[in-house]
Amino acid sequence: MSLTIKSHFAYPTYLSFTTKPSRFTGYNTKIRPNSIYHFNPLKLTYYQPKKMQAPVQYSPAPVIKSSLIEPDGGALVDLVVPEGERGAKTIEAESLPKVRLTKIDVEWVHVISEGWANPLKGFMREDEYLQSLHFNSLRLKDGSIVNMSLPIVLAIDDETKERIGSSSHVGLAGPDGDLIAILRSIEIYKHNKEERIARTWGTTAPGLPYVEEVIIPAGNCLIGGDLEVLKPVKYNDGLDHYRLSPKQLRKEFDRRNADAVFAFQLRNPVHNGHALLMNDTRRRLLEMGFKNPILLLHPLGGFTKADDVPLDVRMEQHSKVLEDGVLDPETTIVAIFPSPMHYAGPTEVQWHAKARINAGANFYIVGRDPAGMGHPTEKRDLYDPDHGKKVLSMAPGLEKLNILPFRVGDICAGLTLIFYTICIYHSRLY
Amino acid sequence: MSLTIKSHFAYPTYLSFTTKPSRFTGYNTKIRPNSIYHFNPLKLTYYQPKKMQAPVQYSPAPVIKSSLIEPDGGALVDLVVPEGERGAKTIEAESLPKVRLTKIDVEWVHVISEGWANPLKGFMREDEYLQSLHFNSLRLKDGSIVNMSLPIVLAIDDETKERIGSSSHVGLAGPDGDLIAILRSIEIYKHNKEERIARTWGTTAPGLPYVEEVIIPAGNCLIGGDLEVLKPVKYNDGLDHYRLSPKQLRKEFDRRNADAVFAFQLRNPVHNGHALLMNDTRRRLLEMGFKNPILLLHPLGGFTKADDVPLDVRMEQHSKVLEDGVLDPETTIVAIFPSPMHYAGPTEVQWHAKARINAGANFYIVGRDPAGMGHPTEKRDLYDPDHGKKVLSMAPGLEKLNILPFRVGDICAGLTLIFYTICIYHSRLY
Repeated sequence: MSLTIKSHFAYPTYLSFTTKPSRFTGYNTKIRPNSIYHFNPLKLTYYQPKKMQAPVQYSPAPVIKSSLIEPDGGALVDLVVPEGERGAKTIEAESLPKVRLTKIDVEWVHVISEGWANPLKGFMREDEYLQSLHFNSLRLKDGSIVNMSLPIVLAIDDETKERIGSSSHVGLAGPDGDLIAILRSIEIYKHNKEERIARTWGTTAPGLPYVEEVIIPAGNCLIGGDLEVLKPVKYNDGLDHYRLSPKQLRKEFDRRNADAVFAFQLRNPVHNGHALLMNDTRRRLLEMGFKNPILLLHPLGGFTKADDVPLDVRMEQHSKVLEDGVLDPETTIVAIFPSPMHYAGPTEVQWHAKARINAGANFYIVGRDPAGMGHPTEKRDLYDPDHGKKVLSMAPGLEKLNILPFRVGDICAGLTLIFYTICIYHSRLY
Repeated sequence: MSLTIKSHFAYPTYLSFTTKPSRFTGYNTKIRPNSIYHFNPLKLTYYQPKKMQAPVQYSPAPVIKSSLIEPDGGALVDLVVPEGERGAKTIEAESLPKVRLTKIDVEWVHVISEGWANPLKGFMREDEYLQSLHFNSLRLKDGSIVNMSLPIVLAIDDETKERIGSSSHVGLAGPDGDLIAILRSIEIYKHNKEERIARTWGTTAPGLPYVEEVIIPAGNCLIGGDLEVLKPVKYNDGLDHYRLSPKQLRKEFDRRNADAVFAFQLRNPVHNGHALLMNDTRRRLLEMGFKNPILLLHPLGGFTKADDVPLDVRMEQHSKVLEDGVLDPETTIVAIFPSPMHYAGPTEVQWHAKARINAGANFYIVGRDPAGMGHPTEKRDLYDPDHGKKVLSMAPGLEKLNILPFRVGDICAGLTLIFYTICIYHSRLY
């Protein structure tokens, strides 16, 4: 039984449900009494597949599938080469012209390989790039539309382009030189940085973090193609167990018999207002008739600007918030969203929401000025703080997602939880 | 019988017909032996409605309707107040707070009032503005999408905003102070010029003609609402007879029993290459099975940059080209497209095509670098010359239009026709 909920269709009609969750009783909150935040939450279940079946206490109720919401464009892509083929593919990759990736390029390889950008199968070719830049969406071969607001592209310099010559495929090497992927049936096209920046950020002012870090130093060509990743991307930073793929998350929602999943994207420590909001959202979903809404607390784990709180500190803070019961561990999953951060406001919030559709969330919480920042050269917010949720609610390809907006007033409930962060910071500094 | 032709749906598939024009024989090219370029082409037919019925020589063949292609979003809007109501509406307008329009604002009032921007009913409110800026399209209440790549907005300054106060409606006055319209159920929102420019042009470099002329001097607020135009917009420049509305054009295509209409947008004199191209397009359409393709030669008549050839010179040149039989007057209609020019390349070409759908054209000719210009501060084209037709072919809401691309090679056939322009220029200067 699929519980996919289709909601708003026209101008902003937040939360206009057209389908009620099915009759669903007898949920036993004792199924998984321990929190999953301090170890690989899927370790047990993945190696004990029989436990992942619908628990017996639910029969004869229908089995809840992971398809609360379908991934964009059909089945989730999985671009990691099966283990049995890795040897041969690695030998092939070694024979190809090489493109050396930056740390952030590797983050994008990770993102694409697991289907966060579904149905994208590799770095964008020009058709996809132009659609993303102009329409924030891609038209699929069947005529349907998926959201795709950020260009997910790989830049190369002229020297690399020359080295590639007429080869149809290239090997992608990480910053340390290790081969990590093959890019097939490549297309090389011009990287007009000014246009990309202007259309993505709505400004070309100097000082945009992703622009300074990634785009300005990048080459003048873009190379698109289909990805084959030689093995799963790992960071070995002690946090890999938090990096659950969309497939893993969907399985976990399924295992927990979620009948609604609400995602909360953040790149900062949780504060009291956030916690109140997330608990309140759960309460609202229960009132709507859902029996088992699950919170996906989903901090962004890729590139962030220098003055943001580092990922390891944030993850420790999130853990403490959960340990202390501020959020309920039984109905919360904490995982890392591996994308780099653009700070591109209304354009980027669409990406944040779209990726969570692919991870199985059918509700998305959006606040004031999502993915925003101060203007880099003027004393004002770069974006109108309300534009993020307005644009999100009207974005092509996101019609199937339920948008849960909250207002500034919702998060003015104190700063106690920030205390955790300060403690963690201090414990590291001294 | 409707001949609406639905074509490409997925990635660029120029001219992939799915419907063949119906069997249709016996077209008599002698119906209207005189060209229509030097007088109001509809004067006779509009005052002799009986002549507009399907001519007897076509029976028993089916009557060709003007619906070769449906206007975006349903019926064409007509926002001009009926004559009987003008007195009362003018008195009401006089009682309202006033907004003084620029010459270019009036051009937009003209454009909106006749349905070129169908189904837009007035200057954009914020929801429409944001969708246009981010998605180049608008979602209608029924969930369908229409193309809308340029924000069609009206700017006001802080003083005007204050004067409007809490009024729900305002009167719009032309540059000379004459009241020309009422804007109803207004919404005032912020005019973030930097963001509008960056997202529309893909650059914020100084020197963009429309930006310098229109946006920089404009106020910091935008005012949206529903338009009621007190009487049809006229320019009294001796060219008003060329300014045929979408409704008039559709009637004329109908009267001529067109079974295909191919539009050619231009803002410069016709040269030999253009003429060859237009004749070749007609030949191709005949080969495809159409019996009576009509060319809409459609020069843009609104704001253009200072170094473009003035409208009156262009119109005279177009007339001479037709008088001399370079294009066939019997299968060509010359009319003025009243829109101002943005020079916004791939973003603007969508507007040019979309407006021609509303005027009844089901084929659109697109060349190299449409609506492009040199970069204002760098020695290069502002846009990749191929992006216009690529973006056009993938644009949301334009799926029902057949795109006819042509390449640089198609227009290298000499410059003889430019001679006309030089002669006209000289005759005015000396």
